[in-house]
Amino acid sequence: MVQNSQKSGEKMERIVSLAKRRGFIYPGSDMYGGLSGTWDFGPLGVTLKRNIMQLWWKLFVEERDDMYGVDAAILMNQKVWQASGHVDTFTDPLVEDLETKQRFRADHLLKEAGLSPEGLSLEQMTQLIKDNDVKSPNGNALSEVRTFNMMFKTTVGPIDDDTSISYLRPETAQGMFTNYKNVLDSFYPDLPFGLAQQGKAFRNEISPRDFIFRSREFEQMEIEYFVDPAKWEEAFEHWRQQVWRWTQCLGLPDENVHELEVQEADRAHYSKRTIDFEFDFPIGKEELLGLAYRTDFDLRNIQNATAKNMEYLVKGTNTKFVPHVIEPSFGVERAVMAVLTAAFTEDEVNGETRTYLKLPEHLAPIKYAVSPLVRNKTELVAKARELYDGLKKKHGAVMWDENGNIGKRYRRQDEIGTPHCVVVDFQTLEDDTVTIRERDTTQQRRVPIEELVK
Amino acid sequence: MVQNSQKSGEKMERIVSLAKRRGFIYPGSDMYGGLSGTWDFGPLGVTLKRNIMQLWWKLFVEERDDMYGVDAAILMNQKVWQASGHVDTFTDPLVEDLETKQRFRADHLLKEAGLSPEGLSLEQMTQLIKDNDVKSPNGNALSEVRTFNMMFKTTVGPIDDDTSISYLRPETAQGMFTNYKNVLDSFYPDLPFGLAQQGKAFRNEISPRDFIFRSREFEQMEIEYFVDPAKWEEAFEHWRQQVWRWTQCLGLPDENVHELEVQEADRAHYSKRTIDFEFDFPIGKEELLGLAYRTDFDLRNIQNATAKNMEYLVKGTNTKFVPHVIEPSFGVERAVMAVLTAAFTEDEVNGETRTYLKLPEHLAPIKYAVSPLVRNKTELVAKARELYDGLKKKHGAVMWDENGNIGKRYRRQDEIGTPHCVVVDFQTLEDDTVTIRERDTTQQRRVPIEELVK
Repeated sequence: MVQNSQKSGEKMERIVSLAKRRGFIYPGSDMYGGLSGTWDFGPLGVTLKRNIMQLWWKLFVEERDDMYGVDAAILMNQKVWQASGHVDTFTDPLVEDLETKQRFRADHLLKEAGLSPEGLSLEQMTQLIKDNDVKSPNGNALSEVRTFNMMFKTTVGPIDDDTSISYLRPETAQGMFTNYKNVLDSFYPDLPFGLAQQGKAFRNEISPRDFIFRSREFEQMEIEYFVDPAKWEEAFEHWRQQVWRWTQCLGLPDENVHELEVQEADRAHYSKRTIDFEFDFPIGKEELLGLAYRTDFDLRNIQNATAKNMEYLVKGTNTKFVPHVIEPSFGVERAVMAVLTAAFTEDEVNGETRTYLKLPEHLAPIKYAVSPLVRNKTELVAKARELYDGLKKKHGAVMWDENGNIGKRYRRQDEIGTPHCVVVDFQTLEDDTVTIRERDTTQQRRVPIEELVK
Repeated sequence: MVQNSQKSGEKMERIVSLAKRRGFIYPGSDMYGGLSGTWDFGPLGVTLKRNIMQLWWKLFVEERDDMYGVDAAILMNQKVWQASGHVDTFTDPLVEDLETKQRFRADHLLKEAGLSPEGLSLEQMTQLIKDNDVKSPNGNALSEVRTFNMMFKTTVGPIDDDTSISYLRPETAQGMFTNYKNVLDSFYPDLPFGLAQQGKAFRNEISPRDFIFRSREFEQMEIEYFVDPAKWEEAFEHWRQQVWRWTQCLGLPDENVHELEVQEADRAHYSKRTIDFEFDFPIGKEELLGLAYRTDFDLRNIQNATAKNMEYLVKGTNTKFVPHVIEPSFGVERAVMAVLTAAFTEDEVNGETRTYLKLPEHLAPIKYAVSPLVRNKTELVAKARELYDGLKKKHGAVMWDENGNIGKRYRRQDEIGTPHCVVVDFQTLEDDTVTIRERDTTQQRRVPIEELVK
């Protein structure tokens, strides 16, 4: 499908603008001129994010017998990142504008110049830039390509030397591998079993961009699923199906989700198979989440680095092996962005363009808005308040809205994706019925209050 | 109440040991020799922590009309921390062992030597150390006292200079003050209203200690409640009552929670009133959470630093002012530690010491354990599995347990605070009743399955 990139860009801008204006997502450190690559979730965004994260936890931890949650610290011993290879290889190719000294991702500049950086060494990228006379976005010549480590570095403790270096974790995964043995000691689960974690991760992106798609601070939801090496394919297939179940629970249309079987040359060196699940974002078809077969790479690294035995002894047998790992890895911000993309809708109502978020009801931050028809009639307001209290007790996510005329309120609720608007009017005082107006159809119907609160 | 400190120390050790053994809390980076001041939550700890955090969110955000959740980035523009005063004043007094070069908190060494460091300047502490010949824990002489900034520093972006410095936030509070204006623009709530946030904060403690009580990475739950300056006392009193409601919801006995009215000399410079809520931890009476009247200190700082107007215009009037702030600030790890402390119980059952966690049912990670009486009878196991599935669907937090004899299973569930153990036995196959054994009383009774699942 050929995308109209101008139209896509406009859609992205409209989503970003709505997200800020209506209190979903604000630029980070906004008051102070911002901090590139950071975003703050506002009141509605927090709720949307929490709904997504809790749904994930429910589906993949609480409802299953084989999953164990963990919540490891963001700061870890630097040896973790030496053993995992991140200190040496978690890098991006960097070039410098020779005039302005600004720095850019070499692979991004090559792509934008219509050249493919896939699988190239630093030297080869430098050559390609030279051969094609690729310039910086400012039109200046570029330096040679060198590596830039994407981990944020800090020092832990009062002494500032090499031994005190630590990093903000660039992935939550290592917090699970380092707890594999602890969980074995506490629970000794049967194979296959998984660890699951939600939490922040940090990558010092050279050029963060595309709203919350590529930011420097983000939230991951990851699973490390430990299996008998002979049975990895079965587990891989299981999680592939679970991923589809997940995208459906997010309300993403199947036709906008695409499996990309990652070829060997493009896979991480430890992976024997990887499927990227891509989504049709307004910025194009980009990675939403990943499913990787990591073999025993990580547990073996720990075993080699610590001399601790990572083998699993199958109960009631003498069979021992280091388990292999299937890793479904989900990004929270990308899920939020996909949900907003799928929900963002424009249609025409009474000759005017209407913008609304067609959010699945279980994800919508607000389920019901309650209004008195007019705000200056005490009986109406009191009656509406009573209904609001009752609904709030039952559904939690209920908003009181009495500003402007009813039409304006509907539009406002449409924009934040509220499925149901309830209006208390004069007839309510007589027969205890209210008007419910549905977001997706804009249809209204009268319903007895009793039915609504029940 | 005089504490028996040896006994208290033992209790602390037993809690730490149980927490590790049973999968609540593991030392951070354990496999790699640890990283001082970091802790990882294991499967049961994650659930306990989530239960506490979700309860807080429900009580203080979802059930209220005046609260707005936010979730700001951990990394913020350095100007935030300049304006807030943290770059200059968020420090601890540091001394160095002149032989080993180890570093210590000067105020801690003074306290341990029976001297009071309260309100002393660096010079005065240095003098006090000299006058009293205070030594390092290694018995060596100490350096002069100097300041040590507790914020973790890092650099953001590909260029490493002064402009790229950032810090891991030492408190979540600033993420709310910097979003006050954004929330006003999106929602314009009536006063008083509050922002609420849960999230990680980091302090580079010179000597982290006492289990999760003083760690370098921890989770906060904070509220900034914006009020008309003329009405701060009313709001302060409201939140004081809410704090008591909170400690009761955690199952902490009122007699173990103590209000400490912090005197002016000991208050943060911006605070006009502070109450520390202390709890009788095994390590002594220590701060569990705080309630502070921060005046308009933070919003004024932002106004001065950014030249943006932080005033609130009261609707329908010309009255304008910078709101004042009441801040209840809760630590998640301290709440977990208080809950474990209050729950940790030893009694005698059949002449043997029994250890159990008397957790409130709504906080217990597992509500029901389901067992077949013996594991080698297919019908029993199948029946128990069926019950397990039904209960899990209903309560979520249900554990399958078939290892060892029934007595051992009860003890195991006692240790992790499971209120109810359900056993399927031969009689179940005949009359569809099961044995329920209660944690706190160790009493057993027979109940129809129907009643249990309903």
